Amino acid sequence: MGIVLSGGTIVTAVDCYRADVRLAGEKIIAIGNDHLAGPGDQVISVDGCYLLPGAIDPHTHFDMPAGSFTTADDFVSGTAAAVVGGTTTIIDHITQEKGESLFNALAKWQAKAGGKSYTDYGFHMGITDYHGQVPEEMAALVQQEGLTSFKLYTAYKRLRVNDGEIFQTLQHCKELGALACFHCENGDVIDVLIQQAKEQGCTGPISHPLTRPSATEQEATSRVIMLAELAGTPIYIVHLSCASALQEVVAAKTRGVEVYAETCPQYLLLDDSCYAGEGFEGAKYVMSPPLRKPRDQAALWLGLKTGALDTIGTDHCSFNFKGQKEIGLGDFSKIPGGAPGVEHRLGLLYTYGVGTGKISMQQLVAITATNSAKLFGLYPRKGTLAVGSDADIVVWDPRPSYIIRAANQTQRVDYTPFEGWQQQGRAEQVFIRGQQVVDRGKLCPEEPKGQYLLRKPFQFRSIT
Amino acid sequence: MGIVLSGGTIVTAVDCYRADVRLAGEKIIAIGNDHLAGPGDQVISVDGCYLLPGAIDPHTHFDMPAGSFTTADDFVSGTAAAVVGGTTTIIDHITQEKGESLFNALAKWQAKAGGKSYTDYGFHMGITDYHGQVPEEMAALVQQEGLTSFKLYTAYKRLRVNDGEIFQTLQHCKELGALACFHCENGDVIDVLIQQAKEQGCTGPISHPLTRPSATEQEATSRVIMLAELAGTPIYIVHLSCASALQEVVAAKTRGVEVYAETCPQYLLLDDSCYAGEGFEGAKYVMSPPLRKPRDQAALWLGLKTGALDTIGTDHCSFNFKGQKEIGLGDFSKIPGGAPGVEHRLGLLYTYGVGTGKISMQQLVAITATNSAKLFGLYPRKGTLAVGSDADIVVWDPRPSYIIRAANQTQRVDYTPFEGWQQQGRAEQVFIRGQQVVDRGKLCPEEPKGQYLLRKPFQFRSIT
Amino acid sequence: MGIVLSGGTIVTAVDCYRADVRLAGEKIIAIGNDHLAGPGDQVISVDGCYLLPGAIDPHTHFDMPAGSFTTADDFVSGTAAAVVGGTTTIIDHITQEKGESLFNALAKWQAKAGGKSYTDYGFHMGITDYHGQVPEEMAALVQQEGLTSFKLYTAYKRLRVNDGEIFQTLQHCKELGALACFHCENGDVIDVLIQQAKEQGCTGPISHPLTRPSATEQEATSRVIMLAELAGTPIYIVHLSCASALQEVVAAKTRGVEVYAETCPQYLLLDDSCYAGEGFEGAKYVMSPPLRKPRDQAALWLGLKTGALDTIGTDHCSFNFKGQKEIGLGDFSKIPGGAPGVEHRLGLLYTYGVGTGKISMQQLVAITATNSAKLFGLYPRKGTLAVGSDADIVVWDPRPSYIIRAANQTQRVDYTPFEGWQQQGRAEQVFIRGQQVVDRGKLCPEEPKGQYLLRKPFQFRSIT
Amino acid sequence: MGIVLSGGTIVTAVDCYRADVRLAGEKIIAIGNDHLAGPGDQVISVDGCYLLPGAIDPHTHFDMPAGSFTTADDFVSGTAAAVVGGTTTIIDHITQEKGESLFNALAKWQAKAGGKSYTDYGFHMGITDYHGQVPEEMAALVQQEGLTSFKLYTAYKRLRVNDGEIFQTLQHCKELGALACFHCENGDVIDVLIQQAKEQGCTGPISHPLTRPSATEQEATSRVIMLAELAGTPIYIVHLSCASALQEVVAAKTRGVEVYAETCPQYLLLDDSCYAGEGFEGAKYVMSPPLRKPRDQAALWLGLKTGALDTIGTDHCSFNFKGQKEIGLGDFSKIPGGAPGVEHRLGLLYTYGVGTGKISMQQLVAITATNSAKLFGLYPRKGTLAVGSDADIVVWDPRPSYIIRAANQTQRVDYTPFEGWQQQGRAEQVFIRGQQVVDRGKLCPEEPKGQYLLRKPFQFRSIT
Repeated sequence: MGIVLSGGTIVTAVDCYRADVRLAGEKIIAIGNDHLAGPGDQVISVDGCYLLPGAIDPHTHFDMPAGSFTTADDFVSGTAAAVVGGTTTIIDHITQEKGESLFNALAKWQAKAGGKSYTDYGFHMGITDYHGQVPEEMAALVQQEGLTSFKLYTAYKRLRVNDGEIFQTLQHCKELGALACFHCENGDVIDVLIQQAKEQGCTGPISHPLTRPSATEQEATSRVIMLAELAGTPIYIVHLSCASALQEVVAAKTRGVEVYAETCPQYLLLDDSCYAGEGFEGAKYVMSPPLRKPRDQAALWLGLKTGALDTIGTDHCSFNFKGQKEIGLGDFSKIPGGAPGVEHRLGLLYTYGVGTGKISMQQLVAITATNSAKLFGLYPRKGTLAVGSDADIVVWDPRPSYIIRAANQTQRVDYTPFEGWQQQGRAEQVFIRGQQVVDRGKLCPEEPKGQYLLRKPFQFRSIT
Repeated sequence: MGIVLSGGTIVTAVDCYRADVRLAGEKIIAIGNDHLAGPGDQVISVDGCYLLPGAIDPHTHFDMPAGSFTTADDFVSGTAAAVVGGTTTIIDHITQEKGESLFNALAKWQAKAGGKSYTDYGFHMGITDYHGQVPEEMAALVQQEGLTSFKLYTAYKRLRVNDGEIFQTLQHCKELGALACFHCENGDVIDVLIQQAKEQGCTGPISHPLTRPSATEQEATSRVIMLAELAGTPIYIVHLSCASALQEVVAAKTRGVEVYAETCPQYLLLDDSCYAGEGFEGAKYVMSPPLRKPRDQAALWLGLKTGALDTIGTDHCSFNFKGQKEIGLGDFSKIPGGAPGVEHRLGLLYTYGVGTGKISMQQLVAITATNSAKLFGLYPRKGTLAVGSDADIVVWDPRPSYIIRAANQTQRVDYTPFEGWQQQGRAEQVFIRGQQVVDRGKLCPEEPKGQYLLRKPFQFRSIT
Repeated sequence: MGIVLSGGTIVTAVDCYRADVRLAGEKIIAIGNDHLAGPGDQVISVDGCYLLPGAIDPHTHFDMPAGSFTTADDFVSGTAAAVVGGTTTIIDHITQEKGESLFNALAKWQAKAGGKSYTDYGFHMGITDYHGQVPEEMAALVQQEGLTSFKLYTAYKRLRVNDGEIFQTLQHCKELGALACFHCENGDVIDVLIQQAKEQGCTGPISHPLTRPSATEQEATSRVIMLAELAGTPIYIVHLSCASALQEVVAAKTRGVEVYAETCPQYLLLDDSCYAGEGFEGAKYVMSPPLRKPRDQAALWLGLKTGALDTIGTDHCSFNFKGQKEIGLGDFSKIPGGAPGVEHRLGLLYTYGVGTGKISMQQLVAITATNSAKLFGLYPRKGTLAVGSDADIVVWDPRPSYIIRAANQTQRVDYTPFEGWQQQGRAEQVFIRGQQVVDRGKLCPEEPKGQYLLRKPFQFRSIT
Repeated sequence: MGIVLSGGTIVTAVDCYRADVRLAGEKIIAIGNDHLAGPGDQVISVDGCYLLPGAIDPHTHFDMPAGSFTTADDFVSGTAAAVVGGTTTIIDHITQEKGESLFNALAKWQAKAGGKSYTDYGFHMGITDYHGQVPEEMAALVQQEGLTSFKLYTAYKRLRVNDGEIFQTLQHCKELGALACFHCENGDVIDVLIQQAKEQGCTGPISHPLTRPSATEQEATSRVIMLAELAGTPIYIVHLSCASALQEVVAAKTRGVEVYAETCPQYLLLDDSCYAGEGFEGAKYVMSPPLRKPRDQAALWLGLKTGALDTIGTDHCSFNFKGQKEIGLGDFSKIPGGAPGVEHRLGLLYTYGVGTGKISMQQLVAITATNSAKLFGLYPRKGTLAVGSDADIVVWDPRPSYIIRAANQTQRVDYTPFEGWQQQGRAEQVFIRGQQVVDRGKLCPEEPKGQYLLRKPFQFRSIT
């Protein structure tokens, strides 16, 4: 007894065609023109809808501690918002504490997510203290825990490692088949600029972008790429936000360096005029890197079109405006950095990417699902709509139109950076491993059944 | 009553997974894990084989007049060689004569191919005389004849048009949704170099590459790209052969210009040391552009890896060494230009591309089938392996290994540039629109049943 | 008995220092701190003034036929305007007629200039018909007539030669030690655009820039550079006007190609908003290439700063607005192309280049004198202020300020593109080969005494 | 009573012409054709010789402490070698100790040089500890001590400062009109590579270049340029050694960033095959950056030709092979880094640069004298041969030829990297501030009379 989705248009990263899909157990078992249903199968009409592989968000921060509190969204609310938006898998970022064992950090995150996630999930391990046991623990994480990507920071005194440690981590990743991910901003320079801004009495949110200029992101991106090239191993740049950093990625790709890059909807759609809002309103957009200029947006869209950018994450890291963002009233450097986004990614990209002709349906699938699956060791189980793959399917109805409002959202935070934006289409139904989790746009399961994903090592040029 | 190919690994331009395929009539009607066969279906075991979409050769010259004779291969032998090699669709180049109506030229080529082609086929129209009726005829060809691509030469006095005519053709193509294809070499400069070589008594085949230096290809490529950018319309560069021309393509793609490029197996695998062979042997490799340097080969492979190159054609244009190439004994400029290649494309790319890790199976499909189908208005009917598409399928067995020999080839020419090269794998079975045309590596139908293809207009960014 | 200029500041392309200069006969014979005057010497105080080498204008068109009339300025008025503006040497462009002997063309120009030139002068030979005797005549011009630079056009049906002829000319120049100069615009494409504009009823001056877009200049610049690189010989690009063409020059220089480039004051200071003027006013600015965008101006200034641009010519080619420009009323393509400029070059560059800090005094000398002297075989006789050089000296007083007005100008044309522009400083006194030709800003000799200059062949990397 | 140098050819960075020069007191007072000598003047015939401005070596390390000993050359022997080689001014690098006052460091270096220097001299201040008083001391050094350039290291744990400190130093330099100089290598990565090499038992000199790959220099060069661009202030890259770092400089210059770069004769003439010498011989070439590949040499010569490189320093830092270099027997990382060079700079560049046509005489002067004078606040007192400048003059006789041998050298070290190289030409006579210090190639004064130079602040674009 399976399910047949009948009458839709299947989209993969390369194809787009009319066909029915049959699911049985957790898998897609057939794709065909008709007569696909077996005895006892449930047939669901999806006429007029696209059938997309469940989207993957490769960049979330749920239940993340930030000083005296944690993010507004934990795994329950965060993954609920994800599935409502068409995302069926997330990869969350663990942050090691200074001196902490990586296994200990993983255990904490497993506890945060276990039994509380509506999506399937995996983790990137953020290494902030390259102590003596780290190399050995990295190997064990890859080989025993299916955790095959690591993240390093070039900014934030409490998170960043030095260039020698970056280089050694790259060497380890090469040996282990792990993918090293990088937050690229020159933290030392930014710290100087923040200090100078404060000394000059500049304390409002507008100082946030001014103290993190594009050049600091370009420099760190360039540096990390050169170190990866020297080490001879691929890397993945998270949340790339500006034209100049993109240019470094393009130059590297052109000469054959395996560098992959992610951007986020906010960098494509919002710009730094958001910080000029009245009063403390700009705090809602305080994230790092900050929102950039309209010309950076244009460059990023071009990067998606030409394949210079590979994935779209959200960097969902939500703090309530009331009570959380407000900590930074009077000192922009104390505003907790981050914004919500996991819920609206697919809708925004469909509306402002596909809808405007900037990207095709196939590219939408590539950047929201397939490429992340291939890069992070989930393919072909996740990331495509093919026989044998997990039945993670989004039935995307392009017809409904609505206005994004914090008041109506599933993510548990008191604002959205996209308040008032129009969205075309929605995830009418969503299936994860054959089970329906969204119906008529609403979350339907009684309890979270997401599973931890053992990810495979990085494959040589796995994305192509 | 259909056919089920059972036990193979399906490859598309993005996916690679185990599944069975069911064909009925001319189409693929289902892909699934098991129980796919209906009553009366023939089940063919393809264990251990890849199932690839039938390959498309976007660049052939069959039955082409060249002075006092025609090419060694006509449509019968040429397309027979194609299917044996896994190619199920070809797009042949028509050459308009001076003063000739384009419709007249098409009629001649339809007569050459009609009833004589084992593959399905289409035509590019080569415009060599931009006379007053040309614009009107171009429109009619696109709208009535499904002929949606045009080819222009920047070399050869008898073929080339001037920059103003190129520009006007580009403007027409934009209006019509047709794709303009370009042979890029600066013919004026080459003519001077040929004349000077002959004046200096340099008459052997070695003078061929020396009188067509890379710079002449780079220049014409650069020029054509700039004219296309000015006209605001996409273009397709045929048989790109060198690093410097590729660099122009890469720069253009990076800034968002829609330029697509084709290279050929000979430019990836052979180099200009071939011209230094004893006696007149080098004449076998006389083609334009000529074979280049090893460093150009490396650049082309990198271009395939990074997506700078989109397709692989063969520029199959075969002349017998005996009696045809020999016309140029004593005057290299009289050697008829061209070489055979339609038969070995897939095998060479599988062996020296996939087999060496330079490209993935998915990329093999992209460059030999999917991208050409999308660029030339054949997608999704051709170029992919999806439900609803034509059942053009290659069962590629990766296990057999053999040596390429002119003595054993299907193409009807007395040599091959790849004599003695080892090939891994072969097209064990080939299906075109559901009918088997190759079995155990041998051509099996009694007569050619290939059809003329009405191609659709070029779609905006159709390749992605 | 000589002349001592006392109290000024000497400027060369590299130095700037306080010293006196002593002239005797036609030469500079000493530079020193004091006691320089010999018995009988005339001592002229030039306190507060700069002493500059007489400027060289490498690009003028005096007494040039254009259809039914000739340019407004002949050699008398043109060179009078030159010296008043601080220019002591000009190199005028000869235009060969179809079928004409180059020697015949030279004879005509010698007749135009002989006894009528206040400045010393030389000629570039414009080859418009590459007939059989041309190569031999080129050799004779270089070796016997000291005419060591040739000019080729890529635009204008009646002037342009084809790429093969360009290539052969480059080969000859290499052999002869002559410098090939190029007018770079793709004439074929421009002709199409002009035709289309006229068909659409666009007949006013505004159509002039629209039918000569930057891309046509970039393309021709790129093409000519590649042909020169292939030929292995230096070239000189005249009147480069836009950022995209400059980019081609920069890329070529970076890889070691010897390409030199000239721009003109009008491209640095005026933009295409001039064509939007009321009525037919835009005709005053009809020249080719046309005026470009403000962003092109910025790129050109940067090019001067970084050394990407080597010289400043004027392309002085004056037509009266009344009676000459007016020929094109109702058909922009009939407006005679060109504008006056020889008189105000130094003043404009001093005011808007040095005065704004965009270039230094030394750069002013380099681009208006030294580099042209070196490139065109006049150095060290001309182009610098050194012992042994011709005593061509401009006493530039930086203090006076005035408004440029056609009503007050020396050039014999009824308008100036710089009407109403403020100029800071002026050529207070000018000496040519030791004889004073300007005093208190006014032309002083009774009759022209300029000499024809036998120029030396081009020296390998002579500019550095 | 002065001196007249009669019959020579004067060379400046732009001019080259026959003239006599008259010196009086410390200055050049006249340049002229003849009759220059006043009553009582000494006339020295310099027929057949070039008269060059005294060369400036912007990069020496004399009497520098290195662990338990100091460099082989102190100011006496180092500057004696300098003048014999045609160098009349040196700028030595001070190294601040951790915690030390910059003024204290200057005092130590003034003591080292005072009364012991044959050349005039200045200092760059190397900041290794950016403590609280540094900003204030920088200002005082610039304003009171004429010390207007600072040097920062990105390598060596004991010397390097972090990116935030670099950025603040750049900001201070901008404010003060000082020029920031950078040693560019990524020290963190190099330290990892050295550690790994030692763990693998690689202990010989060959490990030196292998642990300092070009990428580490490119990265640091790129980073420093971006920080300078962000700060909006010029920088100077010392001892640039490789093509990839040069490429960063070229790209920056092209976009208008004021970055200046120095290379050294050893990077132009020697390559890393030197490290493969027998036994411990490679230790003689241990310097940082290390010698590179022949392709890097070609890139550097091209960089000199095109103006991408501005100056030639020597980085003279001599250690005896016996007893000093030998400290590193068994551990390449303990070999004191540096090599002698101050004596042979001009001769090597004349022989292998001018003599091979790679650079002109004028460029020789530009890169060995004029550009350093302008960049480091010494122009026009030093760096050119003009009336009013210091009479620092090298009489360069191009005729003698000899073999470079440690046994014959003036520098006080037991080897030279150029042992056995042929040198064409020599400094026949040298004058410093009008006093002869070299005669017939030999040092002639009894005691050092070099003076400390108060340097001027950096001028906006002073080099052009």
